Amino acid sequence: MTQNSQSLPLCIPSGFVPGYGQGNLALAQINPSPGDLAGNARKIIAALRLAEQQQVDLVIFPELALMGYPPRDVIVRHPFLVAENLKWLRGIAEATGKTYALVGFVEPLLPKPSEQRIGKAAFNAAALLGEGKIQAIFRKSLIPGYNEFEDYRQFESSPVSGAIAPEWLTDVTLHPPLQDGHGLITVHGHRYAVSICEDLWNDPEFFEHPHYPHNPIAGLLAQRPEVLINLSSSPSRAHKESVRHQLCGFVAKKHGTPLVYVNQVGTVDELSFDGGSRAYDGHGQLLARAESFQEQLLILNPFKGQGHIAPLPGQPSEASPAAPAFQANDTSDLARTYQSLLQGIRDYFAKTGFQKAVLGLSGGLDSAVVAVLVADALGPENLLTVSMPSAITPDENRSDTQTIAKNLGCPWIEIPIGTITEAFTQELSTIRASVEGIWGAVDARSNAADNVQAISRATLLRQLGNEFRALPVATSDKSEFYMGYATVNGDMSGALAPIGDVCKTKVRALARWLNEHRPETVKTPKNVLPLSVITKPSGADLKRDPTTGELITAEAELMPYEFADEVIWRLETLNQSHAQLLNTPFYYEQQNPLPPAQKAEWLDKFFDRMSKAVFKWFVAPPILIVEGGGSIAKSDYHHPIVANRIHWQGHSPREIRTFLSENTEK
Amino acid sequence: MTQNSQSLPLCIPSGFVPGYGQGNLALAQINPSPGDLAGNARKIIAALRLAEQQQVDLVIFPELALMGYPPRDVIVRHPFLVAENLKWLRGIAEATGKTYALVGFVEPLLPKPSEQRIGKAAFNAAALLGEGKIQAIFRKSLIPGYNEFEDYRQFESSPVSGAIAPEWLTDVTLHPPLQDGHGLITVHGHRYAVSICEDLWNDPEFFEHPHYPHNPIAGLLAQRPEVLINLSSSPSRAHKESVRHQLCGFVAKKHGTPLVYVNQVGTVDELSFDGGSRAYDGHGQLLARAESFQEQLLILNPFKGQGHIAPLPGQPSEASPAAPAFQANDTSDLARTYQSLLQGIRDYFAKTGFQKAVLGLSGGLDSAVVAVLVADALGPENLLTVSMPSAITPDENRSDTQTIAKNLGCPWIEIPIGTITEAFTQELSTIRASVEGIWGAVDARSNAADNVQAISRATLLRQLGNEFRALPVATSDKSEFYMGYATVNGDMSGALAPIGDVCKTKVRALARWLNEHRPETVKTPKNVLPLSVITKPSGADLKRDPTTGELITAEAELMPYEFADEVIWRLETLNQSHAQLLNTPFYYEQQNPLPPAQKAEWLDKFFDRMSKAVFKWFVAPPILIVEGGGSIAKSDYHHPIVANRIHWQGHSPREIRTFLSENTEK
Repeated sequence: MTQNSQSLPLCIPSGFVPGYGQGNLALAQINPSPGDLAGNARKIIAALRLAEQQQVDLVIFPELALMGYPPRDVIVRHPFLVAENLKWLRGIAEATGKTYALVGFVEPLLPKPSEQRIGKAAFNAAALLGEGKIQAIFRKSLIPGYNEFEDYRQFESSPVSGAIAPEWLTDVTLHPPLQDGHGLITVHGHRYAVSICEDLWNDPEFFEHPHYPHNPIAGLLAQRPEVLINLSSSPSRAHKESVRHQLCGFVAKKHGTPLVYVNQVGTVDELSFDGGSRAYDGHGQLLARAESFQEQLLILNPFKGQGHIAPLPGQPSEASPAAPAFQANDTSDLARTYQSLLQGIRDYFAKTGFQKAVLGLSGGLDSAVVAVLVADALGPENLLTVSMPSAITPDENRSDTQTIAKNLGCPWIEIPIGTITEAFTQELSTIRASVEGIWGAVDARSNAADNVQAISRATLLRQLGNEFRALPVATSDKSEFYMGYATVNGDMSGALAPIGDVCKTKVRALARWLNEHRPETVKTPKNVLPLSVITKPSGADLKRDPTTGELITAEAELMPYEFADEVIWRLETLNQSHAQLLNTPFYYEQQNPLPPAQKAEWLDKFFDRMSKAVFKWFVAPPILIVEGGGSIAKSDYHHPIVANRIHWQGHSPREIRTFLSENTEK
Repeated sequence: MTQNSQSLPLCIPSGFVPGYGQGNLALAQINPSPGDLAGNARKIIAALRLAEQQQVDLVIFPELALMGYPPRDVIVRHPFLVAENLKWLRGIAEATGKTYALVGFVEPLLPKPSEQRIGKAAFNAAALLGEGKIQAIFRKSLIPGYNEFEDYRQFESSPVSGAIAPEWLTDVTLHPPLQDGHGLITVHGHRYAVSICEDLWNDPEFFEHPHYPHNPIAGLLAQRPEVLINLSSSPSRAHKESVRHQLCGFVAKKHGTPLVYVNQVGTVDELSFDGGSRAYDGHGQLLARAESFQEQLLILNPFKGQGHIAPLPGQPSEASPAAPAFQANDTSDLARTYQSLLQGIRDYFAKTGFQKAVLGLSGGLDSAVVAVLVADALGPENLLTVSMPSAITPDENRSDTQTIAKNLGCPWIEIPIGTITEAFTQELSTIRASVEGIWGAVDARSNAADNVQAISRATLLRQLGNEFRALPVATSDKSEFYMGYATVNGDMSGALAPIGDVCKTKVRALARWLNEHRPETVKTPKNVLPLSVITKPSGADLKRDPTTGELITAEAELMPYEFADEVIWRLETLNQSHAQLLNTPFYYEQQNPLPPAQKAEWLDKFFDRMSKAVFKWFVAPPILIVEGGGSIAKSDYHHPIVANRIHWQGHSPREIRTFLSENTEK
């Protein structure tokens, strides 16, 4: 078990007075790692000690802080991990004194010997620890199973909300915090209600379509606690901050009860948790907020109204509503996206034990933006940029790659791929005639010659990574994934796809934002990307038009990205059908004349390409989820690969009747 | 909408008399495709017409037959598909006459205008159609969300079991089958209870750990139906047939009520449904069973005891219990595995619209077995086998590949990869010194030189596939996936991984089985694989031992496969921990002396390799699930990639106490 001396940044509000019994609380916004019980316990103990120094009544950790969220099916296949987490919980309990702690953990579902175990083997739970003991347990009732959430695969829903003392807690003879008897706990004289994540998110007055018939916090709040506490592990997605802010304020105000919300930070594969732990007063006013995307111990006092409010990335107004329209260049969302992707890259490398990355720079937009993100996340000295020109690569692109690397301060090397692709071509041309003798002529639509360039580049990166313990990074963007405009084992291959949930138009907006807004601490904060990289038409640079000799652009092969990206937004956010898309005026159409036949053609092409692209989503590396409506990341969206005969245009009842009668010989 | 003239094989029992009112039933075991509403409707209509010809009272289709199971999140992101499936349902209803039909479909959750919609947007439902109308609706109550099941992501649980007439069914003025009023339906004078899949699988007397607190069929059976019907889409897994047989017999006997069970066939990505639709009499005796892995219309009469029982693959005894011990060579399970994989390959190609495959034959076991499977599934003329020797490939392996192709009747070509790998090596050696100048010496453990061979081969296959509209097939087996002994973008790359859920020892047993038991209809049914291919030590053939000059075998680099495969079985089936594995005598140890230190070393190595292999699972192509306890297929098991700091050996409470106090400065 290695030691880690990193300390947790402490935030103390002005006017704060240490001392027990005043209702001082500490929000321990930590970054645990799933299954790393020792590492997570170390972080918990460190935060506890820091809180004790300030004589805080109660330090609150995020949902499942001890196990790390989400544990996924690991705790089902390997139940020993649950037993281990219980041992660690007892160890941490023993280490507590006057400062109490609320720690999220996995509670095994242990029936009495005479009873049958019904349902899943564990609860998503939290424990109140203090005075050397486990004092009470809280279990989550609402178990999400949609989008990025899969608690339902591992956790049983608790029919009871609030504090309990289950039978397995045999070592505890007295539960002073439980004496209240109504599911509340009393700590240093103050009465708190404790809830876990989703249990806060089902108010039927706030949500148009509640996910569950029951609102677990209603019963708790009826007991009139002084403060409602919520332990969360809730990922950052576009406009989520706005919804979270409004919901928390709404609940606090509705019940006239201060609300304290603790959220984890850190990225687990595709899910980026943004922290932003916070408190609201009983009027629904924001009292305190921790930093986004950073570990922090935030101290506050809801009884005295003491707290510090950290600004959000990009500093939008508190109440900025979820954007109703498709827009890629919302400044505050770009700031959040940047910080989210930075954390995603940093945590993926740190948690898998890698320091270095290799990246192919083409001179195009996507790889340029990914280079900036990776350099900022890992340090420029840890990113090897590689230019891998072919015979058709424009000289301008090659020099742009050097400029980008120089601006970033990254090492840069060049490996021409001509001899490699030539070797592939040679071997295939030798054998092609004999295969044609068996299977007939080559498919005229084959793009094998294009793909081999992309695969050769990815292979070189993978080999360099293997030789120097560095991870190759994939550069495909969300628009390309949707339309299958990415090469399997090629540009979409790598350890991580940082911009796989960022559409092309937003990548372009992000590039402009990066040129203006990167922090002063990095080398060349301003204008790191040459303007030509941002403005040149996107393309895979894999082939030239046989008549003009020009490189074929992506938009010529596909459709305008502004149009395609609006389709994606409408599919994910509004769940529109092909017919609705056809008949609803696009924002794109406000700027660009678009004949209906052209729109229909593009839509048909989009749906056709999307149907065939699903396999590529299946074999994609982890995609850092950033958007709100949806993504094609595997932990967010599931689509059968073989479901590619969906008739997206739909049928009229008359067409259906005709079809069925033609298939009928009654 | 293309036409398909394939007819459904009809099975009529001896003594059968056509005519309404006798209680003749037809089990329509069809192979629908998710989202292909027109194609699925065509199959439904064809089965209906066939049943009408026999004057059958009721024809029963599988769970979600109209939409295809599992639809996954497609119906959430694209709700128009649900509206479409309702149109098709009405169309099919109009086409019904005296023969009634039970058809699984997706029912949108439509609240009254004044009510809030709570929960998910749809039910997993079935409709009774007859006399030109929708007559009644049935909704699934138990919504699974574990292993390969994810209904919980899309479907709301119904609080009500049995027949209902929801408000949206406004076109129905009279529901004769519903007049009963107790959730049963009456069709041609007989009273039936109808349930959907999981609702049958929660009897607390049968299961040690029921998944849910409620048993929905208990209330239905209390109404004394004459027959209990269950519509299922239940995948085939090892020993599942045995559990299914015992459960169905148990339920029928317990309630003294005949049970009719209809299951879909066909493979959707990783999930292979085996059909085997069946009926039991009120004593729990098997009365009829349809074929496994084939479409069929099975006619039977539970009132007269008329039915035909098709044998199972490999014909085990009816009541053969789930094997308690690890065994790779269970003959009946090998027969089922063969049929399951055959269907998996056939359906993946057919449903994605491909006829042809390309496969690299190395002369080793895995690629040889996959070649037999693909040739048998698609026809030998549709499989191009490619030998891609390097300088270190033994001549024996090359000649073995020719023998296999010849035995199968497949085309065979050879492409040496020497010039390609040389081109990669050349380019890297040119640049290596400058990278070493930046990042220091090459990692001594690098296996870049090995991997480039595997990637070059996969690239050639992908290019051939691209040029000739053929899909490349991955050859990695389950043991290799568990220990990360497979090359990303190399041998584990392809459109499909047919044996990704088959351990090495079982692949070897399957090879021997194939040599004996392939059907007489194929070319060279016997001894298709040379004995040398089956008996030679497995290895990647990527490097030679520098001292002996011999090719390094996999078992020398890893551990004996018999040991590793038993670890996998114990993890997936018994959920044993590292400590339990260490302290439980293995079946392996009965045959082989194994000092405890050696066992500990192998276990440590296994867990270490497994932790690092999770990324490879994430980017693997679809794996055909065949085993019972678990798999690493993405639709079956989720494991965070970054969870690689799990301390598999566990800690004692004393170690934990010491660790926490060392991290404490109280």
